[in-house]
Amino acid sequence: MHAIGVDIGGTKIAIGVVDEDGRILAQVRRETDPDDVASIDRAIADACVELGDQYEVGAIGVAAAGFVSADRTTVQFAPNIAWREYPLASKIAALVGPQVPVVVENDANAAGWAEFRFGAGRGASDMLMLTIGTGLGGAVVVGRELVRGRWGVAAEVGHMRVVPGGHYCGCGHEGCWEQYASGSALVRDAKAAVVAQPHLAGRLLDLAGGERKRIKGPHVTKAAQEGDALAVALLAKLGRWIGEGAASVAALLDPEVIVIGGGVAGAGDLLLTPAREGFTAQLSALGHRPVARIELAEQGNEAGMVGAADLARR
Amino acid sequence: MHAIGVDIGGTKIAIGVVDEDGRILAQVRRETDPDDVASIDRAIADACVELGDQYEVGAIGVAAAGFVSADRTTVQFAPNIAWREYPLASKIAALVGPQVPVVVENDANAAGWAEFRFGAGRGASDMLMLTIGTGLGGAVVVGRELVRGRWGVAAEVGHMRVVPGGHYCGCGHEGCWEQYASGSALVRDAKAAVVAQPHLAGRLLDLAGGERKRIKGPHVTKAAQEGDALAVALLAKLGRWIGEGAASVAALLDPEVIVIGGGVAGAGDLLLTPAREGFTAQLSALGHRPVARIELAEQGNEAGMVGAADLARR
Amino acid sequence: MHAIGVDIGGTKIAIGVVDEDGRILAQVRRETDPDDVASIDRAIADACVELGDQYEVGAIGVAAAGFVSADRTTVQFAPNIAWREYPLASKIAALVGPQVPVVVENDANAAGWAEFRFGAGRGASDMLMLTIGTGLGGAVVVGRELVRGRWGVAAEVGHMRVVPGGHYCGCGHEGCWEQYASGSALVRDAKAAVVAQPHLAGRLLDLAGGERKRIKGPHVTKAAQEGDALAVALLAKLGRWIGEGAASVAALLDPEVIVIGGGVAGAGDLLLTPAREGFTAQLSALGHRPVARIELAEQGNEAGMVGAADLARR
Amino acid sequence: MHAIGVDIGGTKIAIGVVDEDGRILAQVRRETDPDDVASIDRAIADACVELGDQYEVGAIGVAAAGFVSADRTTVQFAPNIAWREYPLASKIAALVGPQVPVVVENDANAAGWAEFRFGAGRGASDMLMLTIGTGLGGAVVVGRELVRGRWGVAAEVGHMRVVPGGHYCGCGHEGCWEQYASGSALVRDAKAAVVAQPHLAGRLLDLAGGERKRIKGPHVTKAAQEGDALAVALLAKLGRWIGEGAASVAALLDPEVIVIGGGVAGAGDLLLTPAREGFTAQLSALGHRPVARIELAEQGNEAGMVGAADLARR
Repeated sequence: MHAIGVDIGGTKIAIGVVDEDGRILAQVRRETDPDDVASIDRAIADACVELGDQYEVGAIGVAAAGFVSADRTTVQFAPNIAWREYPLASKIAALVGPQVPVVVENDANAAGWAEFRFGAGRGASDMLMLTIGTGLGGAVVVGRELVRGRWGVAAEVGHMRVVPGGHYCGCGHEGCWEQYASGSALVRDAKAAVVAQPHLAGRLLDLAGGERKRIKGPHVTKAAQEGDALAVALLAKLGRWIGEGAASVAALLDPEVIVIGGGVAGAGDLLLTPAREGFTAQLSALGHRPVARIELAEQGNEAGMVGAADLARR
Repeated sequence: MHAIGVDIGGTKIAIGVVDEDGRILAQVRRETDPDDVASIDRAIADACVELGDQYEVGAIGVAAAGFVSADRTTVQFAPNIAWREYPLASKIAALVGPQVPVVVENDANAAGWAEFRFGAGRGASDMLMLTIGTGLGGAVVVGRELVRGRWGVAAEVGHMRVVPGGHYCGCGHEGCWEQYASGSALVRDAKAAVVAQPHLAGRLLDLAGGERKRIKGPHVTKAAQEGDALAVALLAKLGRWIGEGAASVAALLDPEVIVIGGGVAGAGDLLLTPAREGFTAQLSALGHRPVARIELAEQGNEAGMVGAADLARR
Repeated sequence: MHAIGVDIGGTKIAIGVVDEDGRILAQVRRETDPDDVASIDRAIADACVELGDQYEVGAIGVAAAGFVSADRTTVQFAPNIAWREYPLASKIAALVGPQVPVVVENDANAAGWAEFRFGAGRGASDMLMLTIGTGLGGAVVVGRELVRGRWGVAAEVGHMRVVPGGHYCGCGHEGCWEQYASGSALVRDAKAAVVAQPHLAGRLLDLAGGERKRIKGPHVTKAAQEGDALAVALLAKLGRWIGEGAASVAALLDPEVIVIGGGVAGAGDLLLTPAREGFTAQLSALGHRPVARIELAEQGNEAGMVGAADLARR
Repeated sequence: MHAIGVDIGGTKIAIGVVDEDGRILAQVRRETDPDDVASIDRAIADACVELGDQYEVGAIGVAAAGFVSADRTTVQFAPNIAWREYPLASKIAALVGPQVPVVVENDANAAGWAEFRFGAGRGASDMLMLTIGTGLGGAVVVGRELVRGRWGVAAEVGHMRVVPGGHYCGCGHEGCWEQYASGSALVRDAKAAVVAQPHLAGRLLDLAGGERKRIKGPHVTKAAQEGDALAVALLAKLGRWIGEGAASVAALLDPEVIVIGGGVAGAGDLLLTPAREGFTAQLSALGHRPVARIELAEQGNEAGMVGAADLARR
């Protein structure tokens, strides 16, 4: 059965027809007006009808950045779009018609599910997905099922506390994992190193045009790839935090594979090697269990669409 | 369908017939010789046959303290009994006969499941059980299913790291949650307080017969119940760590209820109140989700037996 | 012997004649142009000459915010004024004439010295001064002598590390004491509490006109004085960090008195009580030593001038 | 002027005549009975009289392990000898006669002073001495004067807190520097690594005869010198903690040199290199100040005697 997957971003919407192997058969894009939620409903519905004329589809899955109710119908709160307790599934269903069921999923969960079904997590029973971009998001699969939690807000991995009294997070708490394992953390660490370790920061500053404030994640990755010692150390620190935090999750959930996605994953082995070292060094019961694999994500930007479509079929 | 539940402790085995409502219809006990694993098999099988003559039973569930394989057949390692990659389920089945299936479960998981099905967690979909005795064990239920993990070692909650560079744990790592949220932690904190805060420790020392080394958990609870300020503070510190750590789990799993069992739970509200405060203070997305309940366990010492029997039915 | 004390702030200069009991006999003020260091020299020299016509003075002491060389002659670096390896003492002496010696002191050291000689530290042999404003500065007196260190940069108390992996500091390091014991920390904690604990933050938000970003330290103090629970807790947290950090200093230096100055000191007992509790709770060798007093500063805004004058006499 | 130095250990007393250049001209030893404090007085007095017959001495300095009053007369408490508010100086003076003044000093302070006057700290104005044996002791010199503190208990460097919620210390507190920068910490870390990282611990276990519990500090040093990766990492971790903690002291005191003594110093560059790296990485105001030297102690076992003698002359 084909299904339609919808991925609603801050500025545009991607809508595609996805087959049972996760392949995208057709795809269209629409603009988003984040303040006009009814227009988003209509844009999605129009595209679904358009694609439905070309393909027989059995379900529609919508990936949305925000808190989604556990029954997969409602966006309770979204940071970037004006949804507040918004019944997104029924709104779209009302426009598309009753014959095709519509479900809503958190976008990180949808992307993680795509990775689980068709990407680096395929074949596993238990998976932790970490999406390391500006922040740290994720998805959790237990016993081949996506974990949504009682109220739909599971897998907020970035807000596990890893350092009591640690860096402040936008969520108002101290020491959230996101403050140690994210692109923002990498950039903040790089900027701080320029102040605290000026004798080591020459190459990083060069890449940022001599201005500390303009340092971005790719500057760190590039310098590290050139062999710059400070940049290598910054990525290693980030990787250690990823691995050590993942070991705490593994104590709780015993996953088979940990998938690393998001922009920071572009650093590749410069990040993966310290992540694996940190994970092994902190893993409980080492010697009494296999060590979970840590792998880069394989699905690209369409992961949310693909995962939402696949989840809608279930 | 009735099922037999078996709970193998360090010195004795409890075997009982459990109905579908978690009631124990009959129960026998046997001694354990932890070094003679074949004798344990025989003792269990004999009791099962004996009980099977009186009740019609459809399954046998065995709760064992140790790492149990995810397929519920084998104890891979046990700290107190000489099981090493021991196929406990098939050993017992060979003695009992093929008509009744036998499954093995980790004892903390079994006890947690009893709580989920028949105790403080009943009616919930997602539950975290914390068993706070000498150490910190637990069980995790997600979507009404027990979480065993890929290799059967999930729910090792005590070994999530909560303080980098923190107290050493018997597992060889620093800062495990067990070192902050357990009876051992309470006693260690109490003994330390006698040294660091001698002016506050009079009542605690009295209860321990004047000897710091003889302070035990119940002394702290008793002093706290009398209103002793230091003892109240010690339990509050323990409760805060329980609640704050549970908030990290909640970020990952979004449970509906957190059940507190084990000997330390005897402190009741002296522990629960700070645990709830710590949980609320650290919970991410407060205001966008309900706050999970934190409740005392309701099942008693037979929880492992009851839970193993019920899991065997599934 | 009378001495002239000079306190160079970011926007104005205070110059006064101070007698041996720390009393200010006369005082004038001048504007500062932080980018024109020669104009600062001239303004100081003019005022010194003017005051020197009225009083017989034996020395001139200049308090400057910046790194001052251990020989009391040179400002090596200043954050707000364009001094870079600037021989401030000789520049002023060249204008005033050779008959009156000129010395330069760090402004926090000068203010601490005034407190030691004429304020809350008088009579003590060993003192720690903590100036808690936007940041955390201080001064250290050991054996009745001001501690300047080998290169003049001692008493940077705010940059002792109290939390590995803790909040980032402007100095580029993580976990500096200043990030836990300062007005900035108080405001940051208050703003975070509004996000993390919205149900408790009503009064604080009211005082800030309903805008989280406009919360200032005095709002916290005012709310706490009214009895607002969150504000009391925020000040208590700040006080605990002051006291616990001071206990680390006490392990090293064994002071007799710890003096708390700066704007945050206005919270009085709401701050002092938890500071004393934190100090006592963390003090090593409690029971084998008296507990140092923790007191509010007594000298006001002229402390820098008074202390610089007194140090110049020595 | 020659002076007599006395170093009272747990099982024996060393008494020697020391010249103004720190050379030992003559030396005798006596046994200690730690429970019979009068016998210790007599043994010291007898030896002093004996040596005084051969050399003209102007003062007697006694180094004692314990809390010594700031006026250098009384041992207030000692962990290993039965002194409790014991006026050791006057007891010895009563036996030796009034013509030679007697002073008492804390033994770590005396040893640090020897290093300052005649060892790795000579020529400096400000020094931090760290004596890293089983525990972490030290001495502080500020402005060429030994820092004793208001009540004589300064320089308890091992009890500065470096990790909130960190390892418990014998003093009853959590996270004392001693728990991270001492021989005990090294051995504890090594034993833990055998549990947590068994695949890396082969060589360490071999050296300890295959028994984890028998691992000692020299095993780690030997394995590290052979190039064993785990042992090198363990010493590096220890060195980092030494350096990072020293950076906090440097923020407060701005020393010119940090001297590392005690048994652990035998690891040499395996310890010094990471200590220097940790110090530089954490030092505040790097770039605005020279980086203090970190050097190995030069004085041997007689440092306490030599330092006590020299302090008695002052």
